[in-house]
Amino acid sequence: MPLKHAILALVDERRGYGYELVQRFQERIGPGWRLNPSAVYPALDQLERDGLVTSVARYGGTRRSPRVLYAPTTTGEVALEAWLRATDAAPEPVRSDLHLRIAFARPQHHAALVAQLAAHERDRSALLERYPRESDTPSATAGRALVDSAVAVHLRAELAWLALARATLEERDR
Amino acid sequence: MPLKHAILALVDERRGYGYELVQRFQERIGPGWRLNPSAVYPALDQLERDGLVTSVARYGGTRRSPRVLYAPTTTGEVALEAWLRATDAAPEPVRSDLHLRIAFARPQHHAALVAQLAAHERDRSALLERYPRESDTPSATAGRALVDSAVAVHLRAELAWLALARATLEERDR
Repeated sequence: MPLKHAILALVDERRGYGYELVQRFQERIGPGWRLNPSAVYPALDQLERDGLVTSVARYGGTRRSPRVLYAPTTTGEVALEAWLRATDAAPEPVRSDLHLRIAFARPQHHAALVAQLAAHERDRSALLERYPRESDTPSATAGRALVDSAVAVHLRAELAWLALARATLEERDR
Repeated sequence: MPLKHAILALVDERRGYGYELVQRFQERIGPGWRLNPSAVYPALDQLERDGLVTSVARYGGTRRSPRVLYAPTTTGEVALEAWLRATDAAPEPVRSDLHLRIAFARPQHHAALVAQLAAHERDRSALLERYPRESDTPSATAGRALVDSAVAVHLRAELAWLALARATLEERDR
């Protein structure tokens, strides 16, 4: 659950509450990683149960659901440091259901796949248009820029492949 | 569980048994998607419980674990056709724990991240060296070649980004 560590890192940078943490996550990580706002509350609960963050204040919000402000515990700071120094295996290469369907497609499936590839091209192009983001805040760190470039580099690669795949299947379909 | 459909597609192309299906999967999909051989048996069991494949013969193997040969049922053929014509949303852009760690790293973490990036570069380079594969069998279809090119295109993009990220963090570390 990498999200848990990201939330912990945000809280460590500056105390925060649920929705504000979602906004700070999106500002840092960019539109390529859409964080479902409802995912942040279970993550905070889990972090609190694990003793990594603690609620330090309640304020604002509504009487039934006040905003809860979180800060890291000493244990949380240690866990964050360990995560930031962790090593992991290289991730698996790109893999998707679409790749499998292309691998097993027969000629009668090519038209549907071509339509699917074209839809993905439109979707990926729209996302790529959101990069590069403006870097107009002090929090526009080297890390933020590197994550953005990772997304953009892979989106461009994906678009190149989608166009190739579509052309190949259209050719075969003739 | 896309694997289930891939196994169904393989069985539909030609009746097969467990380990042989793993080999046919790897031949089609390539080294970028390492299929754990032990994953194929639960997938076959699930397909049989769902009525999509049926065991048509037992032969060879050992007395305690004979080879079971599978073939698709009519229901399985319908399900396969539906899968091959399915559409899905474009996959999420690349995301990994490493990206999050880079986004939240402080200068004291840069050395560890540089080492991690270098390790991933070595791993991805080694995998990329396995492409392009030889296309020396009749089963070297357009689909097989397209899946290979998807993996190779993304590996090259990842390598470009890893080198950029490493250079950026090394620069900051000076």
